[in-house]
Amino acid sequence: MRIKPLFFSGGAMNTTLTVKTTSKTEFIEITGDVQKAIQSDGIDDGVCLLFVPHTTAGITINESADPSVKSDILMVLNKMVPWKEAYRHLEGNSPAHIKSSIVGSSELIAVEGGRLKLGTWQGVFFCEFDGPRTRKVHIRLL
Amino acid sequence: MRIKPLFFSGGAMNTTLTVKTTSKTEFIEITGDVQKAIQSDGIDDGVCLLFVPHTTAGITINESADPSVKSDILMVLNKMVPWKEAYRHLEGNSPAHIKSSIVGSSELIAVEGGRLKLGTWQGVFFCEFDGPRTRKVHIRLL
Amino acid sequence: MRIKPLFFSGGAMNTTLTVKTTSKTEFIEITGDVQKAIQSDGIDDGVCLLFVPHTTAGITINESADPSVKSDILMVLNKMVPWKEAYRHLEGNSPAHIKSSIVGSSELIAVEGGRLKLGTWQGVFFCEFDGPRTRKVHIRLL
Repeated sequence: MRIKPLFFSGGAMNTTLTVKTTSKTEFIEITGDVQKAIQSDGIDDGVCLLFVPHTTAGITINESADPSVKSDILMVLNKMVPWKEAYRHLEGNSPAHIKSSIVGSSELIAVEGGRLKLGTWQGVFFCEFDGPRTRKVHIRLL
Repeated sequence: MRIKPLFFSGGAMNTTLTVKTTSKTEFIEITGDVQKAIQSDGIDDGVCLLFVPHTTAGITINESADPSVKSDILMVLNKMVPWKEAYRHLEGNSPAHIKSSIVGSSELIAVEGGRLKLGTWQGVFFCEFDGPRTRKVHIRLL
Repeated sequence: MRIKPLFFSGGAMNTTLTVKTTSKTEFIEITGDVQKAIQSDGIDDGVCLLFVPHTTAGITINESADPSVKSDILMVLNKMVPWKEAYRHLEGNSPAHIKSSIVGSSELIAVEGGRLKLGTWQGVFFCEFDGPRTRKVHIRLL
């Protein structure tokens, strides 16, 4: 994963992560990359907005200790939203758009002492619903 | 759609959009109205909170290019949450409350150079789940 | 419920609520506690981030007037996410993790004149999906 600083205005961090996904649907943990971006920016305290500028992907916070959790979440989302349905959108990726609206496009996390203030078991996951693709996550400090 | 400025405190934008919905369930794109509110306020840079003060509606970010996407999302949400169920809430609009909690009541979007920093295909949609009604979306700049 | 102030940096409120849940799955309204925390901090105007540092719980905004609404939302979430499935996570609480990602881990609410700027029918609910447990909600003013 590559971290590309975009610009810095008024001291506010403004960075974009690049995430390469390898499957049709996949959760990729980006906690470490977000943490690195914050540290390289010298941010000590604030609130961090993570924003996915895509309509067939999302972002979520969930357990990072056991990788089975992310595959269980994905399995149920993939069952909840039918692959075959009377979809009108002709690109064939309506299920991905729907999962994006269920999971959401952004997360907001406090930063304290230079670290993301997450719970013990929490990690941040980029949610690919129509991969494989090269994706972006905007990071902005408020 | 009507834009009604409420008050301005410490330079922070604080505005409310009025959205008139015409169907029981419906997604209405409000990207242009939010953009207009930001511009009329002269906001150049910041982060914009969009907040829906209703419990049977929501707000989401998804594809704005093809209107079929919003109807596909709505179709699946309407199938996922049963219209008939052993609901205890007597007003008959429990499905709308449930969809509201699934989709969420707010979105947070960066503003750069006076424009919402959305991805190429992204638009902002007001989600009516118990219309038709006259609804509000609060816009606040952080 | 107990309110424990953590620390105050640069005037920004930074507090944690403790929520004791008593059931496996349960919505507990915390609007009053959040309001109290804001008032005891003398916050007049701003935006308030509510963040749940757990991966088997969530937070949502929905109707507070009729308690049937929260039980209807919970009933449908509990049906949408199967209790028995080919889950790989061995702790047996995958359904809770999945509901957490559907409902979300945070809410962002404006504060005006010392009060949460919620709609007439809106309340804030802590969502327990794997209780009973003692839980936390971080409150931070932006």
